[in-house]
Amino acid sequence: VPQDITFDIPFAPLISPDVDRARAHTVAWLCGHGLLRSEAGVAEYLSWDLATAAAVTFPYSAGADLDLLLDFFSFAFLFDDQFDPAVADRQEAVAAVSREMITIPFRPAGMPPQIDCPVTRGWVDVWARLSDGTSTTWRNRFSANWARFMAAHAEEGYAVAGGAAPTLEEYVEFRRRSVGIHHSLDAAEPGRGFEIPPQVAAHPLTSALRDAAADAIAFMNDIHSLEREERRGDPHNLVTVLRRELRCSRASAVEEAVRLTEARLAEVVRLMDAMPGLYGELGLPARDRVAAEWGVEAVRNWIRGNHDWAVASGRYASAGPVCAPAVAYTDDLLTPLGRVPGVVRGLTA
Amino acid sequence: VPQDITFDIPFAPLISPDVDRARAHTVAWLCGHGLLRSEAGVAEYLSWDLATAAAVTFPYSAGADLDLLLDFFSFAFLFDDQFDPAVADRQEAVAAVSREMITIPFRPAGMPPQIDCPVTRGWVDVWARLSDGTSTTWRNRFSANWARFMAAHAEEGYAVAGGAAPTLEEYVEFRRRSVGIHHSLDAAEPGRGFEIPPQVAAHPLTSALRDAAADAIAFMNDIHSLEREERRGDPHNLVTVLRRELRCSRASAVEEAVRLTEARLAEVVRLMDAMPGLYGELGLPARDRVAAEWGVEAVRNWIRGNHDWAVASGRYASAGPVCAPAVAYTDDLLTPLGRVPGVVRGLTA
Repeated sequence: VPQDITFDIPFAPLISPDVDRARAHTVAWLCGHGLLRSEAGVAEYLSWDLATAAAVTFPYSAGADLDLLLDFFSFAFLFDDQFDPAVADRQEAVAAVSREMITIPFRPAGMPPQIDCPVTRGWVDVWARLSDGTSTTWRNRFSANWARFMAAHAEEGYAVAGGAAPTLEEYVEFRRRSVGIHHSLDAAEPGRGFEIPPQVAAHPLTSALRDAAADAIAFMNDIHSLEREERRGDPHNLVTVLRRELRCSRASAVEEAVRLTEARLAEVVRLMDAMPGLYGELGLPARDRVAAEWGVEAVRNWIRGNHDWAVASGRYASAGPVCAPAVAYTDDLLTPLGRVPGVVRGLTA
Repeated sequence: VPQDITFDIPFAPLISPDVDRARAHTVAWLCGHGLLRSEAGVAEYLSWDLATAAAVTFPYSAGADLDLLLDFFSFAFLFDDQFDPAVADRQEAVAAVSREMITIPFRPAGMPPQIDCPVTRGWVDVWARLSDGTSTTWRNRFSANWARFMAAHAEEGYAVAGGAAPTLEEYVEFRRRSVGIHHSLDAAEPGRGFEIPPQVAAHPLTSALRDAAADAIAFMNDIHSLEREERRGDPHNLVTVLRRELRCSRASAVEEAVRLTEARLAEVVRLMDAMPGLYGELGLPARDRVAAEWGVEAVRNWIRGNHDWAVASGRYASAGPVCAPAVAYTDDLLTPLGRVPGVVRGLTA
């Protein structure tokens, strides 16, 4: 089955030593913020093993830094699941909350959300910690990448609801934004206490490397999550798009998706090899070269870690639940909590 | 009266040769997009003489570049006037549209707005032209500054509606975001066909210069628009804040505001003098030094041009309309146009 397909990733697997600490921290944080509110929700969340996902994609982060990255990771996954094309007007609610999620990093840190619900409160809390001590230039870059991801997320909802069938070209352009890799790579910087020098971050070679990495990860995710998305009736998957575009069998479409993925992985390696030449061309001092190289390491760790986690995780398990859930999400996170029992801590507590 | 107060600005006044061309272009553009829909609206708009404002703040832009900057300038002013604390639920409408305005630059250029109204359609059109040919780094910087401005705008609405009285410190921090200078300075770059080198844009000296310029311009605007805002009952004005904070007369508060403004202008000059040293420190090649210096010129032109326009413009005229209008805005720009007569061109026409 597609989830069993593995790729030859030429980067070493690494893991943060604090994976268990972060897992314990984040379950408590999610429950405290009303982002997990039921036993079923907690059980499903734990089955994804996002603690491992964060620890292998951010192996150089530990302690409170890894806790924070896992909080971020987890509420973003939970928000991603809040859209379900079968629920009436759900895409309107997702789009409105997405616009609020885009706006939050542009308000003073810690300001309460204007649209009040568990995901917006969670994001205010995470953003205040994530942005602490960062430069305006990093905040501009992260927040813009986050905004493009959130906007694509809302767009996906409208497209699914409208039943639009994208061409391969349209899909690849869209998927690069919806996979969320650019802001995730940005998050590795405060998570390890560095920033990529601005002239390196702005260089076309860096953009090309990050785009190639985003494509490779998106294509692998699509292959690994194919069965989950087929069960959900979600046409936003590379294999599904290829099958329609090439009028071929599912097996042939999977083969073509694997070929496209391998080509993007080869491009990642080629661009990484060109980075040291760029440092020389820009006349970077030694300290800036280290920071630039840590930025490249973030790309390596994301590709390697995401691949290994996806193959092992229960999130994309091919068996699926015995009874498919009525809706994609277990708890509704887009409406205010009110006085929900079990929510022990609000934003201002 | 406060509008007659002038400041000693040590920068030469300049004006684009295409001010009349731009004026004609933009009135047609505003009418075509439903942003001006009544004779009263057109008359009031023309009385502000925004064409001169754009031509003196962006003197190195001409032709289609100046047309575009004036389109941008004009719809932003019209949107600014859409908030009126006296209209029920108006701040909710302003805040929702502000979040859409923040999101638009993060969607693919030209994508129709999700909240459909004249200001969002106008912004989609302007953004597609303004961002054409720019780097991702410039788009991140501009869009983040634009978002902070829009978020502050919505915040102002809530604060006014809630009757909150900010301290001087809170007000100065808020006003730096709400004055909209950072994104206006960014807009000078595509308007003149250059981009500030990323390591210069990211440097703390550049941030300090732009913050000082934003403060100086905000304080001058507050002094010049004091009577207009007193008429509207808007407490967001440096003089009003000083008057309350210092428990002093209006005249003394104006004097103190002038003193604060002169201090910020002196800081602008001091920081500008330090810029050439930065170019050497960063080892900038000659071409990058020119681009950096054009960035400094944008600050000079904004301070000089904004001052001269504010003193001359009808927007802050102390006489005011014989009959104060019932609401702050002439045409409602926050609801869909539908089939409004006189709207000759929509987004997709």
